[in-house]
Amino acid sequence: MSHRGIDLPSLADIQAAHQRIAPFVHRTPALTCRAIDDAVGCQVVFKCENLQKVGAFKYRGATNAVQSLQEADALRGVATHSSGNHAQALALAAKVRGVPAYVVMPSNAPAVKREAVAGYGAKIIPCEPTLAARESTLARVVAETGAHFVHPYDDPRVIAGQGTAVLELLEDAGPLDAVITPVGGGGLLSGTGIAAAGVAPSCRVYAAEPAGADDAARSLAAGVLIPSIEPDTICDGLLTSLSPRTFAAIREHVAGIVVVSDEAVMAAMRLVFERMKLVVEPSACVGLAGLMTRREAVEGERVGVVFSGGNVDLGRLWEE
Amino acid sequence: MSHRGIDLPSLADIQAAHQRIAPFVHRTPALTCRAIDDAVGCQVVFKCENLQKVGAFKYRGATNAVQSLQEADALRGVATHSSGNHAQALALAAKVRGVPAYVVMPSNAPAVKREAVAGYGAKIIPCEPTLAARESTLARVVAETGAHFVHPYDDPRVIAGQGTAVLELLEDAGPLDAVITPVGGGGLLSGTGIAAAGVAPSCRVYAAEPAGADDAARSLAAGVLIPSIEPDTICDGLLTSLSPRTFAAIREHVAGIVVVSDEAVMAAMRLVFERMKLVVEPSACVGLAGLMTRREAVEGERVGVVFSGGNVDLGRLWEE
Repeated sequence: MSHRGIDLPSLADIQAAHQRIAPFVHRTPALTCRAIDDAVGCQVVFKCENLQKVGAFKYRGATNAVQSLQEADALRGVATHSSGNHAQALALAAKVRGVPAYVVMPSNAPAVKREAVAGYGAKIIPCEPTLAARESTLARVVAETGAHFVHPYDDPRVIAGQGTAVLELLEDAGPLDAVITPVGGGGLLSGTGIAAAGVAPSCRVYAAEPAGADDAARSLAAGVLIPSIEPDTICDGLLTSLSPRTFAAIREHVAGIVVVSDEAVMAAMRLVFERMKLVVEPSACVGLAGLMTRREAVEGERVGVVFSGGNVDLGRLWEE
Repeated sequence: MSHRGIDLPSLADIQAAHQRIAPFVHRTPALTCRAIDDAVGCQVVFKCENLQKVGAFKYRGATNAVQSLQEADALRGVATHSSGNHAQALALAAKVRGVPAYVVMPSNAPAVKREAVAGYGAKIIPCEPTLAARESTLARVVAETGAHFVHPYDDPRVIAGQGTAVLELLEDAGPLDAVITPVGGGGLLSGTGIAAAGVAPSCRVYAAEPAGADDAARSLAAGVLIPSIEPDTICDGLLTSLSPRTFAAIREHVAGIVVVSDEAVMAAMRLVFERMKLVVEPSACVGLAGLMTRREAVEGERVGVVFSGGNVDLGRLWEE
């Protein structure tokens, strides 16, 4: 699908991605919780990507990108810059295909994140903690190795992979009035919007975003891309800003973006820990926090909520 | 089944309990985790009673006791003394049958526990925080109301209910070489031992117990009941000691009890949070801690581990 010259996946691309990645990813459960339904005043079906491999939906997009490569291209490996879930996802996706992965990571990234990526067999290339150093280091790695760059979200194959989660949710949950996902760079939200528009056009697509990184809400309101400057939130997976590609998909398919406080995120996270007994990361809880913040928008409806990941830094929450 | 004059449930009693409680309890999932298998050197199938109603296997025994009552007896209600999972379990089981529940609770019990029990509609009767006050207050409540006392573990109907978890595990997991449960008062362990001996006699039954409350291990070694004096462990569900009834079942059916440190319990709990994304309470982690402590006993085998509950006091782990 092309949108004003921007390459985006179609529903058919997302369906093809689903077939391509099915042997490699978990079909995560769609779970419900009566106590949470009572708390938010609607019927919620949670798509549990916190139970996905590497603990996040990012494994879908990374796997689709890696498995889409021609054999000769794949053999040179894949590369990215990330210190988050995408780095782990790409590392494991490359390992599964048996090809190298190169991950450019700022030298001040927490040891636990370096170890997780290295644990999946990726080669880590440290760089100064600036955007310029990250990009120049990545360019050098790609030039030296011939590796294929897989962006965390600004890539049609990645967006198609992320869209497969909501395809499964709509199959497993039955008809939904609305679905709500987190939005950071917009890969998950773009894929969700395209997929839902294709298979369930009456299902409204919403996103939720922390107040400390609310570029998507501001961009949608203004009609132009407004990147976040110095984002600050406990939702460490949502610090990035939209790209022109994801913004185009979101303008076309997203009915609204609710902005939530970090306090609402923590309250939602605690509810999930206590009532569902599931570990979810703060970024994964913005959707539920959004339902709690804007109850009236979905009152009495059936709503899908995507738990995007479960990689909590327990050391920050839980002092041993 | 009678053992030296002690009334214990038979396999048939446990199977009847399973039919009786099936409409009311969750058939909890039996889950596996490759990262944990690699960490402990055997294949583990986890019975997830942390996902049971009220967050603990205790709901099975309480439901079996409440649903076993004749209508006239049930109408007068049920009573117990507990500040833990049994109190919540009995409160909900009574609510589901539409009969009153009376819970004697020490006046210094945490507010969060009082609220949980009250939230299921039980009447809470505070007492001084001594064993004598607890027993005399319970006796008074029973005399005044005619309510039926349901002991947390020293009751054949409760033991039969707890034994249903391992019946399901053996059905869902396929053949197991061994199964390991926590042991506090011994209700779960007794029911597990009787059920496994009946349907899978080649499956060894083990228990695990924290070092700060190791009365079951000491009793089994000595051949006589040795209650814990001033037990001290983070496993707040395992502070109680065996009764003559549960000791009799354990002597007959349990192959061994492994004693674990609180540090091993916390390491196991962290592994479950990080790799399975499941919230489990410390008491639920002694089985996995036992496998980590005594790897050689089950190396390469298929082992069932019962996660007994998920009611973590997040306030203690997680300072907001």
